[in-house]
Amino acid sequence: MITRQAAQQLDLEDPLAGFRSRFVGDADQRLYMDGNSMGRQPKEAEALVGEALAAWRDQLIVAWREWIRVPRRIGDLIATSILEAKAGEVIVGDSTSINLYKAAAAALGAQPGRRTLVTSDDNFPTDLYMLQSLAAQHSLELKLLPADPVHGLDSAVLRNALGPEVALVALSQVAYRSGALLDMKEITRMAHAAGALVLWDVSHSAGSVQVPLEASGADLAVGCTYKYLNGGPGAPSFVYVRQAQQARLRQPLWGWFGHREQFAMANEFTPAEGIESFLVGIPAILSTVAIEPGVRYVAEAGIERLQAKGQKLTEMMIALSDEWLVPHGFSLASPRAAARRGSHVTLRHPRAKDFVRSLIAQGVTPDFRPPDMIRFGPAPLYTRFVDAWDALHRLFTQTKEQASGAKQLV
Amino acid sequence: MITRQAAQQLDLEDPLAGFRSRFVGDADQRLYMDGNSMGRQPKEAEALVGEALAAWRDQLIVAWREWIRVPRRIGDLIATSILEAKAGEVIVGDSTSINLYKAAAAALGAQPGRRTLVTSDDNFPTDLYMLQSLAAQHSLELKLLPADPVHGLDSAVLRNALGPEVALVALSQVAYRSGALLDMKEITRMAHAAGALVLWDVSHSAGSVQVPLEASGADLAVGCTYKYLNGGPGAPSFVYVRQAQQARLRQPLWGWFGHREQFAMANEFTPAEGIESFLVGIPAILSTVAIEPGVRYVAEAGIERLQAKGQKLTEMMIALSDEWLVPHGFSLASPRAAARRGSHVTLRHPRAKDFVRSLIAQGVTPDFRPPDMIRFGPAPLYTRFVDAWDALHRLFTQTKEQASGAKQLV
Repeated sequence: MITRQAAQQLDLEDPLAGFRSRFVGDADQRLYMDGNSMGRQPKEAEALVGEALAAWRDQLIVAWREWIRVPRRIGDLIATSILEAKAGEVIVGDSTSINLYKAAAAALGAQPGRRTLVTSDDNFPTDLYMLQSLAAQHSLELKLLPADPVHGLDSAVLRNALGPEVALVALSQVAYRSGALLDMKEITRMAHAAGALVLWDVSHSAGSVQVPLEASGADLAVGCTYKYLNGGPGAPSFVYVRQAQQARLRQPLWGWFGHREQFAMANEFTPAEGIESFLVGIPAILSTVAIEPGVRYVAEAGIERLQAKGQKLTEMMIALSDEWLVPHGFSLASPRAAARRGSHVTLRHPRAKDFVRSLIAQGVTPDFRPPDMIRFGPAPLYTRFVDAWDALHRLFTQTKEQASGAKQLV
Repeated sequence: MITRQAAQQLDLEDPLAGFRSRFVGDADQRLYMDGNSMGRQPKEAEALVGEALAAWRDQLIVAWREWIRVPRRIGDLIATSILEAKAGEVIVGDSTSINLYKAAAAALGAQPGRRTLVTSDDNFPTDLYMLQSLAAQHSLELKLLPADPVHGLDSAVLRNALGPEVALVALSQVAYRSGALLDMKEITRMAHAAGALVLWDVSHSAGSVQVPLEASGADLAVGCTYKYLNGGPGAPSFVYVRQAQQARLRQPLWGWFGHREQFAMANEFTPAEGIESFLVGIPAILSTVAIEPGVRYVAEAGIERLQAKGQKLTEMMIALSDEWLVPHGFSLASPRAAARRGSHVTLRHPRAKDFVRSLIAQGVTPDFRPPDMIRFGPAPLYTRFVDAWDALHRLFTQTKEQASGAKQLV
């Protein structure tokens, strides 16, 4: 049994404990367990947005001299400090959904003759939808591999699906429901051996677990900046294209920001050299500048330390759940092995929706995922062990109250 | 000859003069003539962005209960007050470039068998690029009609290009270089008579001239919020789809925000009913909330009054240019007839780039457009007649100085 004191002791020993004070908000009142849905606000974000408002006010169009560099500048920062990639391989802009379309379409364009797309049925909905659209448009086959709802896609299932007809394997490194963490290196190697390109969605992994894009040989990746990177509501996404593939992988959303000489205003599209060819239209500046501080904090904390803390946090939560909740009808829907898990823990219960509603009313914020899942996303950058302990304890208390209420009714 | 006093008199008689004080910034020092590139900052914008930052800070994920409605709420406002359209026909999100792709692709999808796209060579570059991409992807013919560089596309040129093979006519209502204003009703009727769908880019017209989407029968439109609507740097764009066409026109960027039941997180894409099917991914909230006040000001001022003032402003500028600049090698590159002109005036001069640089150094902000154009975009919502007078007078002074300098050199 892990006591509250033991959780407090873990906080005292936590080398990342100091990062908590870099965020604003009512975190001491509210137990925020949804950092994997939307991260908290870095203290510096407001000042950066204020600077952008001031530049709009005072410099007007001239402010674009600086703004135009923002997508690449933050992209380089994400590449080098979070994704184990190189400067010039990542750019920020558009939503993750749109970046998925660009990346998947670029892969298909480079694989003429291969008519199959492969993904898993625990991939995020928008990932599936974009692949469905591309499959429909180009009369391709989309293979939706059955993933284990708890442990994610099994390598053997993927291996059986690979063949000379497969153009692209598109998967999430961390599954949004279960938190299952796939082996990026093994899967990329396997797909490459079959001649397929690989597109990773790192939305639920970037900022919380290692993302070895370079070492794995991954061709393309997209990810979200508003979860573990704390970039703010709907902050633009990022897209990664391996440098060696950039001349070959061409995305179909041809816009003026992706042109080789944007301000020549030429009538013919010529794609930019390098990662800028994955830009499309004008960047939403107020939403983009807010991304930077959260990325810097993650960089400073270091992914290895964040992953280690995330594993400890979720390990503790799983132990508490075993003790308190499983006897009351909950079951663990995340992998037990720390190395196979991202930084969130999902529990199932037939009345999950009601529990989430009650938890929110009591100052705990987890996430409900239909039909019966409660997702707890402790963010290793700012969630304390004692917060995770308290959050689960409130759910435990609810469970007991409901059990005793039910007995009274009987 | 229009004197400075006459310009001041026009300001005194201007029913819209009061709107100037709704904007922040150094407008009294700087003569800002680039409202058609990026509009000024409404006073209320900062507070709205501040509210969104506060909601992120204090409510975190719960703030999405309100935010999720923002794209439709602002879309309805734009539809009913600026575009002569109906609530439910416009939604805000993504860049104009991406909305062009959605809209053009949706039109093509509804026109099987028709293999030609028609546009004009004075359309904005990103419009041309998106059409080029779609033409390349689907092996279609893209007809780039020659537009008059000053007066825009001639109806007769368009008529000759129409036929049973034409799927889509995509044009800008106001040309970004010349400011030529096309007759939306006439052109839409002509294209419809040939069985083509029509997509209007109203980026350079929305907020400054009438945009009769409903009355013209236009099928699709896209437009920009950061020009005459003053939405801020890179603020998300809007897309219009005629209600009667919404069930038929399906865009190919299938994302979770365009799903009929987004939070069911279903594995199969089912498009939302209505304009929401043109949403894709998550909206960039900080950049989106700032759009609203500028739209409200335009609504309050009224498009008819704005267009009337824009015509007067540009008329005065053309008269001054005739008097001061044409004798020094400038030529007018915008239509002389007020009814054929948007709210900007373009002048050509072989040394346009140098003049723009000098004007900026002297506190005047026009826009340079290669190879030899100076674009003055007086925004009828906040540009005074005397500002437009002063801006042209500074260019006149420069011209004289350079002429006398050149004489000295000789």
